[in-house]
Amino acid sequence: MSNYPITDRNRVVRNAKRAHYDEETVHAILDDGFICQVGFEQNGQTLIIPIAYGRVGQTLYLHGAVGNQLLNALNNSRSACISVTHLDGLVLARSLFHHSVNYRSVVLFGQGRLVETDEEKLLGLKALTDQMLPGRWEESRQPNPTELKSTKVIAFVIEQASAKVRSGPPKDDPEDEDAAVWAGVVPLSKKWLAPIRDEISGTDLDMPDSVRALF
Amino acid sequence: MSNYPITDRNRVVRNAKRAHYDEETVHAILDDGFICQVGFEQNGQTLIIPIAYGRVGQTLYLHGAVGNQLLNALNNSRSACISVTHLDGLVLARSLFHHSVNYRSVVLFGQGRLVETDEEKLLGLKALTDQMLPGRWEESRQPNPTELKSTKVIAFVIEQASAKVRSGPPKDDPEDEDAAVWAGVVPLSKKWLAPIRDEISGTDLDMPDSVRALF
Repeated sequence: MSNYPITDRNRVVRNAKRAHYDEETVHAILDDGFICQVGFEQNGQTLIIPIAYGRVGQTLYLHGAVGNQLLNALNNSRSACISVTHLDGLVLARSLFHHSVNYRSVVLFGQGRLVETDEEKLLGLKALTDQMLPGRWEESRQPNPTELKSTKVIAFVIEQASAKVRSGPPKDDPEDEDAAVWAGVVPLSKKWLAPIRDEISGTDLDMPDSVRALF
Repeated sequence: MSNYPITDRNRVVRNAKRAHYDEETVHAILDDGFICQVGFEQNGQTLIIPIAYGRVGQTLYLHGAVGNQLLNALNNSRSACISVTHLDGLVLARSLFHHSVNYRSVVLFGQGRLVETDEEKLLGLKALTDQMLPGRWEESRQPNPTELKSTKVIAFVIEQASAKVRSGPPKDDPEDEDAAVWAGVVPLSKKWLAPIRDEISGTDLDMPDSVRALF
């Protein structure tokens, strides 16, 4: 199991026992979502913008319009940060002090690079699409040259990462165990609702395999 | 309907038609969650850390251990940024180019202030607890003086905010309407799973009203 290198930049300070630096844990958390938060600095002000990603190995592909300020900020910068957080449940202790949440989160540090070739652009866009919904790339009308030209793709190469994971029951102080307070965990999950077909055309088409696979 | 002031700091650049600056929209998005992402700068590096919040009017209360670096970075700083994002669904167009997501997100700018009095600390902690699970504050064992002393509470006063919201069906180019590609929206929702009672004590206690209200 390969670890991302640990330095002061990515070492977890709070609740260090919940920290993980191995690729397997970091990548599994990334692969359970497709929206990340990108943090960067602009004129002395930190900005956070949510954006979709697609992971290929240690690279996250991000895309947007050519003038996109976030993508411009990531290009050739090593000071930006990317985070992904999954909330897995409420942890209800007897004492308020020990209330918590179960979660899986990652923070990534790395280097953004503008993707120059159409070949890698298409690879990145396919990764983005299939991260959102596996198989959707093949089902859809492919990008034409005009669309490809008007899309900027950034490859963010992960240099360092840290994951934090909490799971399991609450941990009260021993002296609270007799308190007459219900304690436990309420797990949280995602739920896909019934797909809403677009009615402007193609109403005779079957729901595609990509959508069926969600249910 | 009162608006947060708009300047270059919070004006939405991309897809400005999706932007909202009114308190009603911003606060409703905040009130639909309790985990935010805080972005701040440390030694030339942007960091993002997820943390719980409780909203009281235009103030978000955040809490943590006394030495918490994020809370220290927020104290007396106006350069940090807070974001909350809710993903509401996949937007599957005929063309890959017009694939999107339905979402509600806010980005907040403001000023962090260390909460000094026990009275306001308790107010902030109650807001945090009830944002996570309404009514839980009253059900639990209250903070004792030692716990209160070891908890730092920061009041983040929202000075500026922007919300972005996308909803509804995909919007393909007219020339794609005849493409033989299924198009539509797959809505996403939260799902609370069956509560898991902590077995170390209190197994005779009924599930509290706060938890019951989730179902």
